[in-house]
Amino acid sequence: MEKVDCSAEIEACYRRQDRFPLSLGIQLEEIRAGYARVSMEIKEEMTNFHGITHGGALFALADTAFGLASNTRGPAVALQVSINFIKATRPGDRLTATAQEEYLTRSTGIYQISVTRGEELVALIRGTVFRKGPRK
Amino acid sequence: MEKVDCSAEIEACYRRQDRFPLSLGIQLEEIRAGYARVSMEIKEEMTNFHGITHGGALFALADTAFGLASNTRGPAVALQVSINFIKATRPGDRLTATAQEEYLTRSTGIYQISVTRGEELVALIRGTVFRKGPRK
Amino acid sequence: MEKVDCSAEIEACYRRQDRFPLSLGIQLEEIRAGYARVSMEIKEEMTNFHGITHGGALFALADTAFGLASNTRGPAVALQVSINFIKATRPGDRLTATAQEEYLTRSTGIYQISVTRGEELVALIRGTVFRKGPRK
Amino acid sequence: MEKVDCSAEIEACYRRQDRFPLSLGIQLEEIRAGYARVSMEIKEEMTNFHGITHGGALFALADTAFGLASNTRGPAVALQVSINFIKATRPGDRLTATAQEEYLTRSTGIYQISVTRGEELVALIRGTVFRKGPRK
Repeated sequence: MEKVDCSAEIEACYRRQDRFPLSLGIQLEEIRAGYARVSMEIKEEMTNFHGITHGGALFALADTAFGLASNTRGPAVALQVSINFIKATRPGDRLTATAQEEYLTRSTGIYQISVTRGEELVALIRGTVFRKGPRK
Repeated sequence: MEKVDCSAEIEACYRRQDRFPLSLGIQLEEIRAGYARVSMEIKEEMTNFHGITHGGALFALADTAFGLASNTRGPAVALQVSINFIKATRPGDRLTATAQEEYLTRSTGIYQISVTRGEELVALIRGTVFRKGPRK
Repeated sequence: MEKVDCSAEIEACYRRQDRFPLSLGIQLEEIRAGYARVSMEIKEEMTNFHGITHGGALFALADTAFGLASNTRGPAVALQVSINFIKATRPGDRLTATAQEEYLTRSTGIYQISVTRGEELVALIRGTVFRKGPRK
Repeated sequence: MEKVDCSAEIEACYRRQDRFPLSLGIQLEEIRAGYARVSMEIKEEMTNFHGITHGGALFALADTAFGLASNTRGPAVALQVSINFIKATRPGDRLTATAQEEYLTRSTGIYQISVTRGEELVALIRGTVFRKGPRK
């Protein structure tokens, strides 16, 4: 199987129209075939009623890295994602999500995404995509 | 094990300070012991670069229902969540997330959350919480 | 999408050559399109070093129901499975695993499998399959 | 938090009474604090009706490594496990499962388990345990 690299196109796409991550202030730091790293500062309006970062905001960061990394291989849609929450974070924290391809077949792909605050692990995610469209 | 019902307190908490869901326009429709239902209209700024609802926005809705339902039993934090994405949705769609307790022990709880658009199933989620604090 | 029903063929296949479940004494109780129910008595040699049922034995029961139910729709292979362990069981217990289709697309399917001991819930599983072969 | 190492006791326990793995011919190759590696040869009676290794047999191998690694930290029970199946294997293949601690708190632990055939990745698993009993 020949592996595609659409990372340049995906980066352009992201900056122009990945509207939810852009609205949250998520920054694309690095993208290459099968890999993406993004970061975000937690803001007050991203908290839940316990005053810590809402699971939805954390997941949005991780899912952004996942979507970027998986689409560098051509069109891909998420089928299933599992997330382990490890540490609570708070407004002012800067979080980084790094997505790395673990396995790629003609029809599916598996990605590991880790979310960190500096050196500390905050969450661990594994996602499975279904690859769409023509893949010669 | 005596089962607690803090649904009234959690509802008040939500309306006052569940900041991320409130910022996304998520509405709390019903809450009772071990159960919560919320809804949200997908807006343009909730899309990804494919023009469909971002996984992070969908998860935020589901996670809000999950957090509400699980905290009706006393303080609880999410340990692990698995989501299956079923159908793409788009700006203008109104989505509903319904969280239902599947099992509760002294230390943990399991919740099923389904996300629907009208009658259609959009995503299926199962989440596990760790229950904190004094439980006599 | 026209939905296939190969339950009769799958039942014959199972009884002739589903070797691992047969070696564990798993009995097929009911199978129809998108559904299967199997049962097994826990034996001493299915325990772990805590003296309770080994996770692998429990999973084997659940996975058998999952494989049967999903293959009634034509050839399918498991992509991902998530299991929540709820209650310890022991030698002498008779466990039942019931697999039910939750969603079916042209390329994938989602199944919920519950494992019970009488009325008690012992484990909850959700599995995703990739559907293979010709699907006009 | 002081981290416990019960690997010697767990190894003795395994060899004496981890009955399900022993009945499948699973061999313990290495165990130390937060880590375990086991291996198994796939036999004809471990196949499913497609003639490939049954998901239950593969999971049993992975779960054995997981149980060993997590119990080196004191008594632990599995709460949730997610498995991604990557490659089919067959009778005669020798598979190795390696469990590695990813995170440990006072009450929970997260483990990554990979199953390989030689250099090839066959399955990826992440498991969460609840830690029991007195932990000073």
